[in-house]
Amino acid sequence: MKKRVILPLIAALAVTTTVGTAFGGGHSDTNPAVKARNAQMSLIAYNMGILGSMAKGETEFSTETATAAATSLAKVAKLDRSILWTEGTVQGEVPGTRAKAEIWSDAAGFEKAAVGLETAADGLVAAAGQDLDALRAAMQAAGASCGTCHKAYRGPRN
Amino acid sequence: MKKRVILPLIAALAVTTTVGTAFGGGHSDTNPAVKARNAQMSLIAYNMGILGSMAKGETEFSTETATAAATSLAKVAKLDRSILWTEGTVQGEVPGTRAKAEIWSDAAGFEKAAVGLETAADGLVAAAGQDLDALRAAMQAAGASCGTCHKAYRGPRN
Repeated sequence: MKKRVILPLIAALAVTTTVGTAFGGGHSDTNPAVKARNAQMSLIAYNMGILGSMAKGETEFSTETATAAATSLAKVAKLDRSILWTEGTVQGEVPGTRAKAEIWSDAAGFEKAAVGLETAADGLVAAAGQDLDALRAAMQAAGASCGTCHKAYRGPRN
Repeated sequence: MKKRVILPLIAALAVTTTVGTAFGGGHSDTNPAVKARNAQMSLIAYNMGILGSMAKGETEFSTETATAAATSLAKVAKLDRSILWTEGTVQGEVPGTRAKAEIWSDAAGFEKAAVGLETAADGLVAAAGQDLDALRAAMQAAGASCGTCHKAYRGPRN
């Protein structure tokens, strides 16, 4: 009995504490899945930014930092898509997203594009352990992956 | 030569495209690492929310959905901390963060707390494959992990 009383309290506390204090995640009325996707894109951008700066020679190549960014990118690219790209969370239907209807109507194509990012991210992890030339080549593949997906499945700016 | 010309263009395109279109990540003048951390917290909150709803009985327990959320949570909990908790990105010094100075002055303690979340997330993955009782127990541990870290290393609301 004690367990049944305490548990919901802790669970509720944990969730409200976490949700209530997450900031920078968009408007509070944003669909939770959309908010999560935007956070995912934000993390992809952050790690690509670190790697891109090295590829462009703006920052010095560091195997350690490149590996950190690529490894994080690979994790973020592999977040479960079934709970992120939920039905109905399409541009025009809910605010804050540029997700095109093709994500759902061409689910196989979208999945292929998403797996393309996963593969490109794995390539970045491998390249980060090598040298700057390898990183540059892997960034080409990653950039192409971003572009392919955005072109087919991302709508115009809101 | 051709490669040297094309590559920076693609790299620059990839990064600006991605960075420029990430929304919901806070103000544009927010420190990139802070923005990334807030995105990470947002994703932790999203996945904890899905699991918390099941633990509280608000949504029906589903091994598939619980596993999806727990697996994503475990990935997000394990993002490389060296590029997220960069020196100087402390509450009061840069906007948009509640990171206390203790994160850096007590780095070992912070690392222990962060690994605590990783362990709790792994526990959620295991529990998600079992049943609702297992999930509830694992959520207690996860909630405790959130609370422990926030109490020691998160400052007051901005």
